[in-house]
Amino acid sequence: MAQENLSVVLHSQGDLRLEKRPVPEPGPCDVLVQMHSVGICGSDVHYWQHGRIGDFVVKKPMVLGHEASGRVVKVGSAVTHLKVGDRVAIEPGVPRETDEFFKNGRYNLSPTIFFCATPPDDGNLCRFYKHSANFCYKLPDNVTFEEGALIEPLSVGIHACRRAGVTLGSTVLICGSGPIGLCSLLAAKAMGASQVVITDLFSERLTVAKELGADFQLNVKRGDEPQQLAKSVTDLLGAQPQITIECTGSESSIQTAIYATCSGGVVVLVGLGSEMATVPLVNAAVREVDIRGVFRYCNTWPMAIAMLASGKVNVKPLVTHRFPLEEAVQAFETTRQGVGIKVMLKCDRNDQNP
Amino acid sequence: MAQENLSVVLHSQGDLRLEKRPVPEPGPCDVLVQMHSVGICGSDVHYWQHGRIGDFVVKKPMVLGHEASGRVVKVGSAVTHLKVGDRVAIEPGVPRETDEFFKNGRYNLSPTIFFCATPPDDGNLCRFYKHSANFCYKLPDNVTFEEGALIEPLSVGIHACRRAGVTLGSTVLICGSGPIGLCSLLAAKAMGASQVVITDLFSERLTVAKELGADFQLNVKRGDEPQQLAKSVTDLLGAQPQITIECTGSESSIQTAIYATCSGGVVVLVGLGSEMATVPLVNAAVREVDIRGVFRYCNTWPMAIAMLASGKVNVKPLVTHRFPLEEAVQAFETTRQGVGIKVMLKCDRNDQNP
Amino acid sequence: MAQENLSVVLHSQGDLRLEKRPVPEPGPCDVLVQMHSVGICGSDVHYWQHGRIGDFVVKKPMVLGHEASGRVVKVGSAVTHLKVGDRVAIEPGVPRETDEFFKNGRYNLSPTIFFCATPPDDGNLCRFYKHSANFCYKLPDNVTFEEGALIEPLSVGIHACRRAGVTLGSTVLICGSGPIGLCSLLAAKAMGASQVVITDLFSERLTVAKELGADFQLNVKRGDEPQQLAKSVTDLLGAQPQITIECTGSESSIQTAIYATCSGGVVVLVGLGSEMATVPLVNAAVREVDIRGVFRYCNTWPMAIAMLASGKVNVKPLVTHRFPLEEAVQAFETTRQGVGIKVMLKCDRNDQNP
Amino acid sequence: MAQENLSVVLHSQGDLRLEKRPVPEPGPCDVLVQMHSVGICGSDVHYWQHGRIGDFVVKKPMVLGHEASGRVVKVGSAVTHLKVGDRVAIEPGVPRETDEFFKNGRYNLSPTIFFCATPPDDGNLCRFYKHSANFCYKLPDNVTFEEGALIEPLSVGIHACRRAGVTLGSTVLICGSGPIGLCSLLAAKAMGASQVVITDLFSERLTVAKELGADFQLNVKRGDEPQQLAKSVTDLLGAQPQITIECTGSESSIQTAIYATCSGGVVVLVGLGSEMATVPLVNAAVREVDIRGVFRYCNTWPMAIAMLASGKVNVKPLVTHRFPLEEAVQAFETTRQGVGIKVMLKCDRNDQNP
Repeated sequence: MAQENLSVVLHSQGDLRLEKRPVPEPGPCDVLVQMHSVGICGSDVHYWQHGRIGDFVVKKPMVLGHEASGRVVKVGSAVTHLKVGDRVAIEPGVPRETDEFFKNGRYNLSPTIFFCATPPDDGNLCRFYKHSANFCYKLPDNVTFEEGALIEPLSVGIHACRRAGVTLGSTVLICGSGPIGLCSLLAAKAMGASQVVITDLFSERLTVAKELGADFQLNVKRGDEPQQLAKSVTDLLGAQPQITIECTGSESSIQTAIYATCSGGVVVLVGLGSEMATVPLVNAAVREVDIRGVFRYCNTWPMAIAMLASGKVNVKPLVTHRFPLEEAVQAFETTRQGVGIKVMLKCDRNDQNP
Repeated sequence: MAQENLSVVLHSQGDLRLEKRPVPEPGPCDVLVQMHSVGICGSDVHYWQHGRIGDFVVKKPMVLGHEASGRVVKVGSAVTHLKVGDRVAIEPGVPRETDEFFKNGRYNLSPTIFFCATPPDDGNLCRFYKHSANFCYKLPDNVTFEEGALIEPLSVGIHACRRAGVTLGSTVLICGSGPIGLCSLLAAKAMGASQVVITDLFSERLTVAKELGADFQLNVKRGDEPQQLAKSVTDLLGAQPQITIECTGSESSIQTAIYATCSGGVVVLVGLGSEMATVPLVNAAVREVDIRGVFRYCNTWPMAIAMLASGKVNVKPLVTHRFPLEEAVQAFETTRQGVGIKVMLKCDRNDQNP
Repeated sequence: MAQENLSVVLHSQGDLRLEKRPVPEPGPCDVLVQMHSVGICGSDVHYWQHGRIGDFVVKKPMVLGHEASGRVVKVGSAVTHLKVGDRVAIEPGVPRETDEFFKNGRYNLSPTIFFCATPPDDGNLCRFYKHSANFCYKLPDNVTFEEGALIEPLSVGIHACRRAGVTLGSTVLICGSGPIGLCSLLAAKAMGASQVVITDLFSERLTVAKELGADFQLNVKRGDEPQQLAKSVTDLLGAQPQITIECTGSESSIQTAIYATCSGGVVVLVGLGSEMATVPLVNAAVREVDIRGVFRYCNTWPMAIAMLASGKVNVKPLVTHRFPLEEAVQAFETTRQGVGIKVMLKCDRNDQNP
Repeated sequence: MAQENLSVVLHSQGDLRLEKRPVPEPGPCDVLVQMHSVGICGSDVHYWQHGRIGDFVVKKPMVLGHEASGRVVKVGSAVTHLKVGDRVAIEPGVPRETDEFFKNGRYNLSPTIFFCATPPDDGNLCRFYKHSANFCYKLPDNVTFEEGALIEPLSVGIHACRRAGVTLGSTVLICGSGPIGLCSLLAAKAMGASQVVITDLFSERLTVAKELGADFQLNVKRGDEPQQLAKSVTDLLGAQPQITIECTGSESSIQTAIYATCSGGVVVLVGLGSEMATVPLVNAAVREVDIRGVFRYCNTWPMAIAMLASGKVNVKPLVTHRFPLEEAVQAFETTRQGVGIKVMLKCDRNDQNP
């Protein structure tokens, strides 16, 4: 394979480069994927701007990107469920060990898991990428590559809603209308939520949320009192929501989430803020409001593909910008500025369609 | 209240009469409801035709009807959450004792439960009916009386899908396209099922199922081989369904349900046939396919109202026939003939709207 | 019934009196209980010392006591499952409304619930007390009155362990070795926990914990570093515990609980401290460590009686002091001083046996 | 390694041979285990006597044995959690594919799983055996090799009780007092069951069950009426059991299980009989008695080891006979005759201790 493998490589904080890397050779359980569409995630931008997220520090050059789809161009000798030409969505986390987390179906918690674009593991913002075939999922013909790439953020929403127990008739508060808040909205609605209130600081984002199915939009301002916001949510719904999906990570929003949620309900923490947070734990405890975190996701790709293929979930409106891979730096700059919702990089020079 | 209370009373097998009964006086925890819309259920017809269902035998005259809604016209002294004029849907089962089933949230299993039109308890196919206020649920303005009455069969579908664990991306087989099969279809779709196969002997019913959202329709014939039908279902879906909701009660259909369901899946038995059934239990057991029954429902009215009010579930197409209460016998005859789907009796002479 | 009804009445903060009250008359669904054994709870002492707990304020004289058992001496007309002479344990919380919490089996969360000795509801530290018969549970002959009274604190432990999901082989950290910590220990062991580490500031309490089955005791000191304590727990068990039951309410102990618990595990908050707490929420969230509160309990009496009757749980060693009802003030003083574990008041002058 | 590898090989129905096979070479993810103790299972004897179990047919020589423990003598290059000299228990099922069952934590349902002594996969009744290191679990010093081998049948009991939801205070009926019935008894008691009724045709087996903790023993006879037996169980417990673990596979016992179990309860099918069974499905369905099967087990070794190490479960009395590997045929003959409970084969000539 004498092809170039243009890759978006973060060398260190602020030092993002487009460079050519060798085309990798798949091992017996891998496939080689010609990348088609890769979304830019807030974490990609965060690594670029800060060189780290928490304990994960970029110490050597790392390819970015983990919201991805492409076409299989080479298949490892032990792979039976995929063949050359298959269009696939890539689940970026691949457990390295068959530990107790993996055996119990919570492989996302395996401490040694490989994960695209989490240091030191390379991501897939490039032309050619090899990945464990077990974590590549064939896309049906009626699901586009971009939908395939969007399964990654959608999976965060699905996992959050599943951990929350969203079911028929659930009333849900979603704090924050960024891509993850919107994906949580889509997942909650598809799982049967009857009413969703969504919040944000920016009214444009709320407009998008409304288009995607939010029943109520609440424009919050910095400095709003959490208990007052909780009351506003109750006023909109006529009752406290049973579930709150917190996607901002801000301390005051976590406080709002706890105050807002009805007794016996659940707050899911998706957004991550500062390590320590001051929160009304007694209020949550005596009302049996559970506080549950999510770490990425597990077991979401098959159900996400099923929903996209059946047309029950429509993620297409999330894509607001597209750039060819060669213009990755502009694409990152666009994401950094918070313009639009999701920026897609198109990695295949011969096919820049959705 | 000097009003007449025309009631549909079953005296004994085959002896159905319209007669005037006294308007009941609500106790302190009751409300008196002026009935508006009451659907005819297959069980009503079965009591009429056979005088019994299993161990439940009509030994004295009993008012029929349990799919009902109406308007509150009198409120017991201890009732605080309802007032005169409220439009309500009526949950027909009211536990008489605070036993362990009730305390644990499964009050439908309480052996002494009151249940409308299950002998010897009177139903609500009449002009005026008193009921425990705790089991009357206020309808929002945008939910019609008929939708309120249809919450009862919808509840069977919701309870079946909840017991089955239908969730995002589930693939579901529903055996039988009668009102309960269709309500299960609506519930499954609303809870996130990605693909539903539905079966029936009659193609007209399958046409309705398709209109209500079934992805695949399978026209079965008496004598079809269960394992062959199971294979047909797999062929339609591309894989075995994770969940089967069996609504016919026929032995061969239960066999099909077990063979069809994928390992680790669930078969829910909704339809009831003969007491003993010969089924491939080893096949189910070694593939950990659970077999779960449903007995009516519990805790479904609030979520059903939420779904109807939000427009996510549309039960309106289920109503194919309407009769004024005075024509109850014709209405029962229509149901007995299996014409259409759901026959509604209109109990309020001044308002026969949906 | 011309008998006196000596009662322990809290008039206001610090003003605890023994006074004679009328013997109550049971309503149709009640039983009148001649009280036998009533344990003193920390909350009783707290009301005495502070006149309030959180939003619950003693505004008028209130009988204390809610850990209780006695003998039925009069039966309401509608009661069928109890008769005069039955020995019963009393569940102090009785829902007043059939609301959605009650219907769903979580009646402890019903906001209007009656609860003994929570203002303004009277408790049962007296000679004669009437209670809803549905929340009085007959004791088998081989369960003593004191065991019956101890079902109340044991229920807190059971509910905490059930919310935590303690099951076969679970490793558990319990923070605090007071009565609730010890009851959680008993419950955890009975539910299959393989190893339990328990902590306390006082070594005497740890000695009791060891006698009751704790596998490891950790003597903590004020000022100990949470992350260091978490490490000590891991060292004792050879791995992080899957579940932590936090019974102290102190902020640093909650921090320890989070740091100590393994990924995918659960922290249950039983102890209540100050309204706001500063905790490492990100640490919990990214490891999917759930934080769950408990509010009293529900559906525990039958299983507790089953365990006591079968001899699988032995609560008897918890009782370290006994006083006749007449000496209630000394009994309260003993509890206030933190001497021993559980102080029992003996309310029946003719039978002061356990 | 110039050692012989004496192995117990089934060539075809009735043709059991002791023969020397090469010592296998572990792959990079394997360990080589010097076998110490291997229990004989009813399925081993069944293959010997019948050459097949259902669709699994012995078509070529197969080493028997899957209840096993031994000592690691060689470690594959990629193995990090085990070292030479470690004493290990062997989980006989090893998924070959990372399919959806495996990813979801139910790897026992993976259709391509490797399983010791299920044709065509070789078992470990031999001197030296290689196995996936991920499915070998290190034994603590205080757990004997025989206890390690008994984790296999204990796992069936654990998985059955876990699928049944045995918890604190559960009342349980176990049909059949063979090794699996007894292991279910041990697991149920350890998970908090308050009362267990166990049945068998043979009173000697019931005597063992009593010694192992059964609260009630019911000696059944062929031809006993299922509904009458169900009534006898109720009479013993004072109520219907919440859970029934059916370990015989006989049709009449499955019928008894359904009739006996209380509404809302669970019947777990462990024993396997003829493919089709005639059972009172309507009785189960209308009382919401779930019927759940078990296929082997998953995720049980770590919890089993924890329980054995803590002394909470005592499996040692199950071993009634021991034979050196050289006398395997006599050992199989002993098992075939149904003498005693569990026959252990001692595979290490230098250490025939428990």
